[in-house]
Amino acid sequence: MEAGLMQVGRRGFLGLAGAGAAGAAVALGAQAGLGQRRTGAPAAGMYAFEGPHQAGIVTPAQDRMYFASFDVTTRSRERLVALLQDWTRAARELTAGREVGGGTLPYADPPADTGEAIGLPASGLTLTFGVGPSLFTGADGTDRFGLGGRRPAALETLPHFPKDHLDPSRSDGDLCVQACADDPQVAFHAIRNLTRLAFGTAALRWSQLGFGRTSSTSSSQETPRNLFGFKDGTANLKAEESGELDRHLWVAAGDDPRADWLAGGTYLVARRISMRIETWDRTSLREQEGIFGRDRAQGAPLSGGREFDRPDFTATSRDGAPLIATGSHVRLAHPSQNDGHRMLRRGYNYTDGDTSLGRMDAGLFFVAFVRDPARQYIPLQNTLARQDALTEYLQHTGSGLFACPPGVGPDGWIGEGLFA
Amino acid sequence: MEAGLMQVGRRGFLGLAGAGAAGAAVALGAQAGLGQRRTGAPAAGMYAFEGPHQAGIVTPAQDRMYFASFDVTTRSRERLVALLQDWTRAARELTAGREVGGGTLPYADPPADTGEAIGLPASGLTLTFGVGPSLFTGADGTDRFGLGGRRPAALETLPHFPKDHLDPSRSDGDLCVQACADDPQVAFHAIRNLTRLAFGTAALRWSQLGFGRTSSTSSSQETPRNLFGFKDGTANLKAEESGELDRHLWVAAGDDPRADWLAGGTYLVARRISMRIETWDRTSLREQEGIFGRDRAQGAPLSGGREFDRPDFTATSRDGAPLIATGSHVRLAHPSQNDGHRMLRRGYNYTDGDTSLGRMDAGLFFVAFVRDPARQYIPLQNTLARQDALTEYLQHTGSGLFACPPGVGPDGWIGEGLFA
Repeated sequence: MEAGLMQVGRRGFLGLAGAGAAGAAVALGAQAGLGQRRTGAPAAGMYAFEGPHQAGIVTPAQDRMYFASFDVTTRSRERLVALLQDWTRAARELTAGREVGGGTLPYADPPADTGEAIGLPASGLTLTFGVGPSLFTGADGTDRFGLGGRRPAALETLPHFPKDHLDPSRSDGDLCVQACADDPQVAFHAIRNLTRLAFGTAALRWSQLGFGRTSSTSSSQETPRNLFGFKDGTANLKAEESGELDRHLWVAAGDDPRADWLAGGTYLVARRISMRIETWDRTSLREQEGIFGRDRAQGAPLSGGREFDRPDFTATSRDGAPLIATGSHVRLAHPSQNDGHRMLRRGYNYTDGDTSLGRMDAGLFFVAFVRDPARQYIPLQNTLARQDALTEYLQHTGSGLFACPPGVGPDGWIGEGLFA
Repeated sequence: MEAGLMQVGRRGFLGLAGAGAAGAAVALGAQAGLGQRRTGAPAAGMYAFEGPHQAGIVTPAQDRMYFASFDVTTRSRERLVALLQDWTRAARELTAGREVGGGTLPYADPPADTGEAIGLPASGLTLTFGVGPSLFTGADGTDRFGLGGRRPAALETLPHFPKDHLDPSRSDGDLCVQACADDPQVAFHAIRNLTRLAFGTAALRWSQLGFGRTSSTSSSQETPRNLFGFKDGTANLKAEESGELDRHLWVAAGDDPRADWLAGGTYLVARRISMRIETWDRTSLREQEGIFGRDRAQGAPLSGGREFDRPDFTATSRDGAPLIATGSHVRLAHPSQNDGHRMLRRGYNYTDGDTSLGRMDAGLFFVAFVRDPARQYIPLQNTLARQDALTEYLQHTGSGLFACPPGVGPDGWIGEGLFA
């Protein structure tokens, strides 16, 4: 079975590299002739772990997410490297729908795999790893792992934006893992087992469950809805736009002389955005649509047409007012208003129960991948926080910036280049 | 469209009443010839809202859950009745995959439906309503709604069990709604819109998202796994056992002379059980299996055989020790050790992120339906809390007991009999 699965991995990798088409990274178990996996579960969607880029970025956005941030608790470079190698090994197993540790069960030991995903298919699981600025310079200002000289210039803790209300216990971290799958139990299982493997080396700092995707990363997917009931991110970067991905998403060799290890990688921006849904729900549809600049039913720009038609920011009503308001979200966030910069958004709706005030604690776990956060995210967020009419209904409560290394080949491990 | 959907509802109701088979309550949109619903979404699993019993109890357990408990904030009986009528009306729409309020969109008003489920199919949504003891006697001891004389004798706040560590803000409530669906966004949308309809009459007290079912309520379903990696609840009551359902699940006319309105209903026990998964994960497989009394791989009792074979509690090893240990979960919880009492368990795995200690805040949101909690749940939980070897790895952090009225017919509303 090991050989068969590795073959799938290799085929996925070579297919991707050869065709240059990101969509080729998908390998369905059934197509690969794998038949049954785990305990009698039918083969189901499986994405190759290997490739020039990490999976879980241009992969068509899965339905559910579990995101985790970790503090490294050791000062040993060797143990940190061993953790990344262990995580890579486990990620190969998890994304193939196999048990961690090969499923061996010596009775006298704790099981290598925690077991709650036995019988479940791979469920499209992807695991995407990143490193935070604090890995390079710890809280005490020291360079614990001798990596300081390789820190990418853009990998800085995100600045304080206007109206930020960040909870430090939901922000930042030395390492992150984004687990996306169509079954949340599979995503949970992955993070739990990676957390377990990290015991003594890294500890969970914060985590976030996302119950519904809010973005499409492939033109084959419908734009989903956020908790304000709107389609947002229609202009999102898509896997099929290969030229645009190179321009806006993937770090290129030469982008940052200090961080050649990041070529083929990208930056992950995470923002936990609490939504004041009770207040929003008392707003008229007219006002809601004005704030977004799109109609709710179809997501069409208020300048007319259909969802994917280009918004006409010059169109005005008979009284001369712009059809798409000056402070509307679609206008302020649109690439045409931001020096042409685009992002690959990959966020999820979340709920964490209720606040003590009887309000639902719910919102958007915003995730975006960009080639350069200093150009593509920070200026935009400064604009949105100051001018976006939507901001009145939002509160940013968590934040993180991570650099995601490139993907790995058959013998590689995540982050290898950083330690080379 | 309204007429077509009502027809499905009625057909489901009559089919159920006629055949007496709980499984008949399922009506697939495609079979009913409904074609498309909402915005172009294909017809998908839909359960009839109407019937002699509420849906969401013997309904084959859906994959995801969102549970909510409410405090009634009015002292007006009329407003409470109006809320239950509004909730019933909305539940008919939501479970049919339609927008709340018929989808009308006057621009000058807030939309009747919050919109995040537009385009999603019904996704097997069921909504199950219950009333808590405090609805009959408020926190200040008063009978706010003139219901005191109709309070079922068994509807008392659950007692403090040994080792309970309950958080009042995750416990009890005047009303509860269990939303189960195969898409968590659909379940969230339902609870959000019911919460919104309750504004000014009832306020969210606590809520819980469950990401993976831990129970089967139909013999057509595989037993799923809890976060300890085990199959638990193999002996669960199943929808197909109609005689057993009448004996163990449904309140019968005459059970409680004060509460004839509850005939055809049942009691819902909710317990938020935090699992010490990090400690469990350091336990040997031998010890884990000894604690459960089943093997992990298949869920077979340690006395031998396969998952659904009856455990032999008299079987011993060569040294005379019982193969299924005295303090094992399967022994203590088995009907044969509990005067033959059985429950219909319908719980879900949950995670609420991490605790401040870097541990995962995860566990089991235990839900069970019983005809009489005083006989079927309280003695069992007293036994488990004192003797079950599993208890060392658990902490009960939330609790609630609710009485779920019977189902409704085409013109009925939930709880109607209580106010008659």
